[in-house]
Amino acid sequence: MAFGLAHRKERPRVPLRHGEGDKHRLTSLEGLAALSLDALSSVAYGPEAIVVVLIAAGTGTLAATLPITVVIVVLLTVLVISYCQVIAVHPDGGGAYAVAKKSLGPRLSLLAAAALIVDYVLTVAVSLAAGAASLASAFPALSTHLLAVCLVLLTLLTTVNLWGVAESARVLMLPTVLFIVSMLGIVVMGILRSHPAAVVGTAHSVRATESLGILLILKAFSSGCSALTGVEAIANGVPMFREPRVKRAQRTELMLGVLLGAMLLGMAYLIRRDQVAPRGGVTVLAQLAAGAYGTGWEYYATSLIVTLVLALAANTSFGGLPVLMSVLARDNRLPHLFGLRAERPVYRYGVVALAVLSALLLVAVGAETHRLIPLFAVGVFTGFTISQVGLVRHWVTEQPEGWLRRAVINGLGAVLTTVAGLVLLTTKFLEGAWLVMVAVPLLMLLFTRVQRYYTAACEELGLGRIPPPPVHTMSLVIVPLGEVSGLAQRALTAALALGDEVVAVSVQAEPEKALALREAWERWNPGVRLEIVDSPHRSLVHPMVAYVRRETGTGREVAVLIPEVEPRHRRYALLQNQRGLLLAAVLQARTDAVVCMMPYRLRL
Amino acid sequence: MAFGLAHRKERPRVPLRHGEGDKHRLTSLEGLAALSLDALSSVAYGPEAIVVVLIAAGTGTLAATLPITVVIVVLLTVLVISYCQVIAVHPDGGGAYAVAKKSLGPRLSLLAAAALIVDYVLTVAVSLAAGAASLASAFPALSTHLLAVCLVLLTLLTTVNLWGVAESARVLMLPTVLFIVSMLGIVVMGILRSHPAAVVGTAHSVRATESLGILLILKAFSSGCSALTGVEAIANGVPMFREPRVKRAQRTELMLGVLLGAMLLGMAYLIRRDQVAPRGGVTVLAQLAAGAYGTGWEYYATSLIVTLVLALAANTSFGGLPVLMSVLARDNRLPHLFGLRAERPVYRYGVVALAVLSALLLVAVGAETHRLIPLFAVGVFTGFTISQVGLVRHWVTEQPEGWLRRAVINGLGAVLTTVAGLVLLTTKFLEGAWLVMVAVPLLMLLFTRVQRYYTAACEELGLGRIPPPPVHTMSLVIVPLGEVSGLAQRALTAALALGDEVVAVSVQAEPEKALALREAWERWNPGVRLEIVDSPHRSLVHPMVAYVRRETGTGREVAVLIPEVEPRHRRYALLQNQRGLLLAAVLQARTDAVVCMMPYRLRL
Repeated sequence: MAFGLAHRKERPRVPLRHGEGDKHRLTSLEGLAALSLDALSSVAYGPEAIVVVLIAAGTGTLAATLPITVVIVVLLTVLVISYCQVIAVHPDGGGAYAVAKKSLGPRLSLLAAAALIVDYVLTVAVSLAAGAASLASAFPALSTHLLAVCLVLLTLLTTVNLWGVAESARVLMLPTVLFIVSMLGIVVMGILRSHPAAVVGTAHSVRATESLGILLILKAFSSGCSALTGVEAIANGVPMFREPRVKRAQRTELMLGVLLGAMLLGMAYLIRRDQVAPRGGVTVLAQLAAGAYGTGWEYYATSLIVTLVLALAANTSFGGLPVLMSVLARDNRLPHLFGLRAERPVYRYGVVALAVLSALLLVAVGAETHRLIPLFAVGVFTGFTISQVGLVRHWVTEQPEGWLRRAVINGLGAVLTTVAGLVLLTTKFLEGAWLVMVAVPLLMLLFTRVQRYYTAACEELGLGRIPPPPVHTMSLVIVPLGEVSGLAQRALTAALALGDEVVAVSVQAEPEKALALREAWERWNPGVRLEIVDSPHRSLVHPMVAYVRRETGTGREVAVLIPEVEPRHRRYALLQNQRGLLLAAVLQARTDAVVCMMPYRLRL
Repeated sequence: MAFGLAHRKERPRVPLRHGEGDKHRLTSLEGLAALSLDALSSVAYGPEAIVVVLIAAGTGTLAATLPITVVIVVLLTVLVISYCQVIAVHPDGGGAYAVAKKSLGPRLSLLAAAALIVDYVLTVAVSLAAGAASLASAFPALSTHLLAVCLVLLTLLTTVNLWGVAESARVLMLPTVLFIVSMLGIVVMGILRSHPAAVVGTAHSVRATESLGILLILKAFSSGCSALTGVEAIANGVPMFREPRVKRAQRTELMLGVLLGAMLLGMAYLIRRDQVAPRGGVTVLAQLAAGAYGTGWEYYATSLIVTLVLALAANTSFGGLPVLMSVLARDNRLPHLFGLRAERPVYRYGVVALAVLSALLLVAVGAETHRLIPLFAVGVFTGFTISQVGLVRHWVTEQPEGWLRRAVINGLGAVLTTVAGLVLLTTKFLEGAWLVMVAVPLLMLLFTRVQRYYTAACEELGLGRIPPPPVHTMSLVIVPLGEVSGLAQRALTAALALGDEVVAVSVQAEPEKALALREAWERWNPGVRLEIVDSPHRSLVHPMVAYVRRETGTGREVAVLIPEVEPRHRRYALLQNQRGLLLAAVLQARTDAVVCMMPYRLRL
């Protein structure tokens, strides 16, 4: 699935710094678990996407699944060879954005970034929708609540990722192996049996609404291309491998290619032989599983393992997108917000952004995989093409040994992925691909506008220039107070430490209260001037702002010190501070004074 | 309707202070417009509430509407006489809460306040639901969207009240006069005609499910009592009248009594004579209007004017509840939040609270008036009783001329409203009145808990005691900085003015960047020490908090000065400041340092 770990290369740096070396790095087999779950899990919706399109021309056309899959596997072969070269040239990983930034200039890097963001979001949505469908195949009661299942899974993933649970390749090993075994088992057992062991789901009445023309075949091909998403993830994560990392990564890429190709071809054969058509309440994969295993425990176990692997595939987006967004933020192309990590090493804003966008998408399509597939893969193929073109440029510029042969391979890859991408876009345009065509340019525009702002702000802030030395001035600290109290004593203590001059200011609406305050002040005699400001309209904030504005701009540094009562129990927070926070907000918006919040903690 | 202007007495003080005198005060007739719209508009749902209950025993029982209405009008008479006395004794107005606080002690005042809050919310819900039903009578297309109509009206009222449009009695005069004319017109025209001019709505098939027993009559009576809500509003608003204000207010109260009584009796007569039963899609009032006017323009005009008057009646709650909540906040019985007015003279939090609560209620009952009526009026009658009992206590304590006669009248009133209240409560308990019985004690508990907190906080803050004089200490100002820039220069200037000692602190994750900063600092040489804090885990906030914690508690006043970049355009706000705000929030929560935000405004 799409670019799952594109930017994860950033993470392993921390252990390295602590000198823990290679034992935290991946072997070839572990790499398969950590970096190709999203690609392998595509078999859960790729073949289905082909069948759903072909069935429009009647059940007789299902035989076309096999030749279409053969073409897709050819494309897969070219991509795998191409990415083995990408691994050799970019051993630091980095994904399409990094490659494009380095070799193809800013504009194409923005295109790559936009395509990546769209894909990360789609990966989450498609994986969860397919996972929910797989779960519902085993437990039919869930089939009317697919959206709810998706949103529950999404909430779970988001929570886990906000807490920052670091996933480990070893934890992923078991589900990966189980998944590969059960998928290959479906193919082998299915071929060994002469007819399906069991048939699940309710029969659809098939009305042939279209004939099997070239357009329908192209459509089925482009839908099936969704099975190729994620092939690039290993190339993006090369730094995660043990030395010799290039060799190991290439070996993993080849393993992925062989496994995925075998699964796709085997399933296509079974679909053709057993005339597997879409049936109500179950997925095509569930039908194949029932055909191979019957409906015993193996069937349920397969459904559960497929759901788990799809959820884990969605999880790789949570590893990838927040990191990509933080890189974009560091490049001034997204709000710096997305580069913020509070105390946990998690880019929370990125995680939340991904969760919100995926949830919106899932709700919009009602968690139906078939409605997401047309949006999917356009962005992935954009990334494929950019990577290959970048590589061709690299070969031509550097001209190492055998550069021409390599350039031809990557060039062929680029041409094939471009053609496939165009087929995808044209055949799926009206079904949803237009949305990607709208979203990608909008994202690119956003990046550009954000960058333009930061460049201008940087100039205004004088970043990178040595400024004149700071000026020494006198200071006035204004303390808004309502009454004589322990709080007032604490506030004046802080103000006297900070200011050359201190004045207490009280806004009073009623003359009697003002008089009483004046008397109490004189009895207290704190050595600080008290000014009482009249407020005929009972507003507290407006007269204070006017007072502060009068004092600023006289050459002195003016600070307003606002005492802030903080109850120990959070449930009382609503009962305190509201006036101080309101005053602080208005002062910050309307005056040039420094606004100081002084905490006063209660035992309550 | 309920206590519409209970606390509006606070508003007219401002004009007085400016010496504009009596021309902003109300004449008797204007008082009718300003203070009794909610009472008069009750005729839109009071008679209907009786009919809806009686129809359960078949159409033959509709004749009982007249005697039940006669009893309600007797109760009205007693209330009007009672309230004329309340006006004389409490010329400063004030509502049940003020009366109870003065004469009956804190516990009953809390009961009065809780009952008032419940009623304000119900007034909004009932008025809007009845208004939407009236509108749908004229425009049947709306009848399937009653809830949506209510919520649109509510949004409109809330927006207007958040902006603080001060309603004027003169603006209300026209709809009031039109409403009275059209209601009296229905009665007079209806009586003059020998049979209805037109019949609107679709016939319901009536199945008699109950017999006309005493319980059904009591139920119909208690539902009809909803027509009496709002009778007390004039007494609450006495200070709004021109001198002689007691006389004028009493005259208005009498006018209200006569008009409301005449309308109720006339309508009850017509319901009996024409056998008006509930029909689909129209209100009882709409049927009466069609019977009197036919279905020409007068019918549509009446529907519109009824809707308008009901919306205006709902609006009186927006005048009353936020003010009551601000009074409760001033008495430490609600969060001080509700006493906050920013720059407009509007208690926004109270307005929002009222809108949210009414919206929830409308959604919960699906905007059906009949489901709100059982909740309504229990609280109103609690307020009636509390006011009367307070007055009896007043007469017995003060013993002015004729006190015994007066005490007897108010005592009779108290007994009658108590009996009516108990009837309401028992007959309507299962239909929803239990909700009021739950809500009122919960609100009283809330008031008590809030007050307990404020009392304890007041003690801890040393309010009302003269504290020791403030202490003179030295200060350290810490300036978190990332780089040498114009922003750093401005921040150090402010810090040097405020602190006896200033230190710039930079958290750096990468040694190369730290070195570069150190070099730039030495070239700049601002005369301030730079400390670089290492952050192996790339967190910015945690090392800074640790640094600040080390410095506090050494006897010096520690302040952290955080520069805050403020773009001129609000759309850029998301692009700046997030790191500073995050740091400020964590420092405020975790350290005892004074946190100072220094604004740095961009021209962007």
